Amino acid sequence: MGRWEPNARGRLAQAALTLYAEQGFEKTTAAEVAARAGLTERTFFRHFTDKREVLFHGTEMAKDLLVRTLTEAPDRTAPLDAVGAALETLGARLQEDPERVRLRDAVVSANAELRERELAKLAGLAAVMADTLRDRGVPEPAASLAAETGIAVFKVAFARWIAQAGPSDLLSVLRASMTELRDVAADHGPA
Amino acid sequence: MGRWEPNARGRLAQAALTLYAEQGFEKTTAAEVAARAGLTERTFFRHFTDKREVLFHGTEMAKDLLVRTLTEAPDRTAPLDAVGAALETLGARLQEDPERVRLRDAVVSANAELRERELAKLAGLAAVMADTLRDRGVPEPAASLAAETGIAVFKVAFARWIAQAGPSDLLSVLRASMTELRDVAADHGPA
Repeated sequence: MGRWEPNARGRLAQAALTLYAEQGFEKTTAAEVAARAGLTERTFFRHFTDKREVLFHGTEMAKDLLVRTLTEAPDRTAPLDAVGAALETLGARLQEDPERVRLRDAVVSANAELRERELAKLAGLAAVMADTLRDRGVPEPAASLAAETGIAVFKVAFARWIAQAGPSDLLSVLRASMTELRDVAADHGPA
Repeated sequence: MGRWEPNARGRLAQAALTLYAEQGFEKTTAAEVAARAGLTERTFFRHFTDKREVLFHGTEMAKDLLVRTLTEAPDRTAPLDAVGAALETLGARLQEDPERVRLRDAVVSANAELRERELAKLAGLAAVMADTLRDRGVPEPAASLAAETGIAVFKVAFARWIAQAGPSDLLSVLRASMTELRDVAADHGPA
């Protein structure tokens, strides 16, 4: 991309979030998003395939972060421990700008198409974590189970964090949820 | 619905699956599905909102089955045991017509929109299981964690079953995957 469009992706993502929150996702056009970002509609479509995709600007960052953390885990780290550490890194990143994360969640939650796309992106994160675990020598189905379960825990923790009023810490909710999951999995009821 | 349309939903679902498999989901219209089922397009749209939804004709059955099995579990059954039993009931139902289930999966897997809708439906199954567990007195976050983890295990097991050639048993893959998940959750690596 040319020098005359510094950080176009980030500017478009920010403009889209602001407009979708102000006037609704359905009522906003890609042209309006581009104009708010001081860019042309053509530039919008050079960066994003549609006005949904601009809300998922952070997915590639999330993938990179998860893959890097998984790859850097010490050898012989248990799969779910490695997944937990990777998700904590992602949680810490989201925690850097909780207002933006909450605003984005409100926009996504208000629209069925966006909720579906969000689920697809989360499934993509699970798939990339499973791939990375397999590359580390974790066999199937352990690799897929650790990755999918990690995303399940992340979804539950994220929803709990969103539901909490006030400045709470996503990272600690995530850690507590992983511990709870291990308890749930160990529970076979009264003997 | 009138007597002149016996089992219209089932007939439309069967016709849609056949046509989507034969000529592709994108190339098939709701009118063609209706004609193949010997019904009118108007009847199609009385039963389904769009040509995607007709492929998810079984979701309500799946919800009913999961809720009923969860509700009938003995008191004090551990949450993930109850979820596992409910998913096994669903697995047994799918196992009754494995050819149809595999054909449907091939159609869904070939189209990004359908894959997104499938994920949304699975998320809906997790939500209804979490609701039912809460009704049974399971506290949060255990209820949501058991439900979401159960669906995570189901996804992994289903994918393994689809990938296996020959007549394999979804139910046994499901049981083995739940056992593996418990092992993965108990694994903290070398001390």
